[in-house]
Amino acid sequence: MKEEYMDLALELAKKGIGKVNPNPLVGAVIVKDNEIIGTGYHEQYGGKHAEVNAIKNATKAVEGSTIYVTLEPCSHYGKTPPCVNLIIEKKIKKVVIGMLDPNPLVSGKSIKKLKENNIEVVVGVKEKECKKLNEVFIKYITSNLPFVVLKSAISLDGKIATTSGESKWITSKEARRDGHLLRNKLSAIMVGINTIIKDNPELTCRIENGRNPIRIIVDSTLKISLDSKVIKNNDNLTIIATTRYANKSKKEKLLNANIRVIEVNDKDKKVDLKELMRFLGNLKIDSVLIEGGGTLNFSALEEDIVDKVRFYIAPRILGGETSKSSIGGKGFYRLSDTVKLKDLTYEKLSEEIVIDGYVNKLK
Amino acid sequence: MKEEYMDLALELAKKGIGKVNPNPLVGAVIVKDNEIIGTGYHEQYGGKHAEVNAIKNATKAVEGSTIYVTLEPCSHYGKTPPCVNLIIEKKIKKVVIGMLDPNPLVSGKSIKKLKENNIEVVVGVKEKECKKLNEVFIKYITSNLPFVVLKSAISLDGKIATTSGESKWITSKEARRDGHLLRNKLSAIMVGINTIIKDNPELTCRIENGRNPIRIIVDSTLKISLDSKVIKNNDNLTIIATTRYANKSKKEKLLNANIRVIEVNDKDKKVDLKELMRFLGNLKIDSVLIEGGGTLNFSALEEDIVDKVRFYIAPRILGGETSKSSIGGKGFYRLSDTVKLKDLTYEKLSEEIVIDGYVNKLK
Repeated sequence: MKEEYMDLALELAKKGIGKVNPNPLVGAVIVKDNEIIGTGYHEQYGGKHAEVNAIKNATKAVEGSTIYVTLEPCSHYGKTPPCVNLIIEKKIKKVVIGMLDPNPLVSGKSIKKLKENNIEVVVGVKEKECKKLNEVFIKYITSNLPFVVLKSAISLDGKIATTSGESKWITSKEARRDGHLLRNKLSAIMVGINTIIKDNPELTCRIENGRNPIRIIVDSTLKISLDSKVIKNNDNLTIIATTRYANKSKKEKLLNANIRVIEVNDKDKKVDLKELMRFLGNLKIDSVLIEGGGTLNFSALEEDIVDKVRFYIAPRILGGETSKSSIGGKGFYRLSDTVKLKDLTYEKLSEEIVIDGYVNKLK
Repeated sequence: MKEEYMDLALELAKKGIGKVNPNPLVGAVIVKDNEIIGTGYHEQYGGKHAEVNAIKNATKAVEGSTIYVTLEPCSHYGKTPPCVNLIIEKKIKKVVIGMLDPNPLVSGKSIKKLKENNIEVVVGVKEKECKKLNEVFIKYITSNLPFVVLKSAISLDGKIATTSGESKWITSKEARRDGHLLRNKLSAIMVGINTIIKDNPELTCRIENGRNPIRIIVDSTLKISLDSKVIKNNDNLTIIATTRYANKSKKEKLLNANIRVIEVNDKDKKVDLKELMRFLGNLKIDSVLIEGGGTLNFSALEEDIVDKVRFYIAPRILGGETSKSSIGGKGFYRLSDTVKLKDLTYEKLSEEIVIDGYVNKLK
């Protein structure tokens, strides 16, 4: 039965998607005499932890119960008091944990403390699922760098536009909606200046109750037009990453328009993406969704900042030696230099096949 | 239970793969008192039909039994006498049929005759599977044109070589082996002259008990070298399709080397692929596997000769605006001109994801 309770805790945790970054998604279920007496999850950044909510919501006394929690309870004083103390205080008998806290400040400490207080502890139930749920948090907390997802919507032959440049729409409405779910899930969206010039996108999250991601535009010389939608509709934070080659008067105007312009080091006259990621990590941006075009997509892979890719493959063939490829730039020269993906998963979504893969950092 | 017997008949039918073209794959199972008393399949071109083999193999008298057969039994005198007569003569009580014969000479006639002889007939059990099994036969018998499969082994971003031209190997050994199974299944393999020049392939089927496909090389001006492997190792039939722009002395030399050179009409100075398909159909070639390169792949799609595509997608990203794309050529100009695929299926094969799709002829 414990696996089913953990499944429920995982489902609860997902309710926090888009609301808790850069903190983890956590769900908790309290069971007593084979009955679920309380559930809770981490609802928003800085808010009560899942365990606290589950105890608060309990319909019976929690003394002698078992709590299932997707992530090791905290033992340190952060924005809230340690959950471990509450568990001990409330005389919970057993704690079933999905995964250890990847945060070096916490990992394993709580378990030790619980055991010292004669509480039974089980670790690793549905661990794989729990780790997947918090892949963003794990990367961020262990590296202070954002978890980067590269998303691309392509034809079966890897194209993002026809020879004439037509690209709207290669994929179905459902696939595009799924892309908006990603925008809600990840803290920031990043595109290259060519995409802004060509498509003039809004880069907002157009789903019910969604929250717009922070917009990051990579624009090494500040070619961006002040009339771009991302500049004019600046209700959310917009960051333009540029270099010392930036047009100075444009920079002035952008700052006046309340746009955050950051100058990072250049690499071959282009924004050093690795440095940009460090900068974003320091801004507490735990995750970035890269939505191309081809030039930025390739640079991101070449600079090895990408953790995961998500490709929506439409049942369509565009063809063409010169039509735009999903991953452009100069390309990898040797097969041994190419990006290998691991842990591939795939699913059907409406007409599309969606492939997720993780960049194998040990190539 | 009848579905299970039909499943068995389908499995039996598959044993004829690569051996019966351009005839159909057929399997038969005879059941009496809930016991399987005979099985058979169409083993080779011109050989006994599945029903005849099943009756011949029966371990008990077939009188009063039920026969399950994937395809409507024949009622006409072809290379063998009509199976319907044998079924009537042997006093089989019931005939369960997967699909009607698509051959206009036969379709429905046998059923009528069986019923006239008071034999119970059920049609359409596992019909979808039976039709899929014989997709080659259905196309060929109804159009006298080969069923054309376009195969491509690509990176997730649709590339078949890196910027430097490296392509061996993008996909795994298992995916390449699966490609050889395709070569065994289809009657002919077709490539463009660029592939011969660049890769100098053998175009053979390298699996145990496999048979080499007929080799078709599209070479509009006869650029092929007489030292090419396909010319030197000419144990199987090799056909070179060319145009009136062919180099005449090269043609002479090829004919002397026992190569079949056929001149078809040209379309923009290139081999008219539609005419070539008509020619191949008349040669009783029921199926063609196109294995690119990008230029031929695009032409085949543009000329609308392709029925099905099979893409092996490797977990790898090659990138590059100028690296070779799977489907090259000039590409489709408008999204509305692009090739739409339907009935997509996908599966994992070793590291690769394999996607099958059918060209939607109603675009």
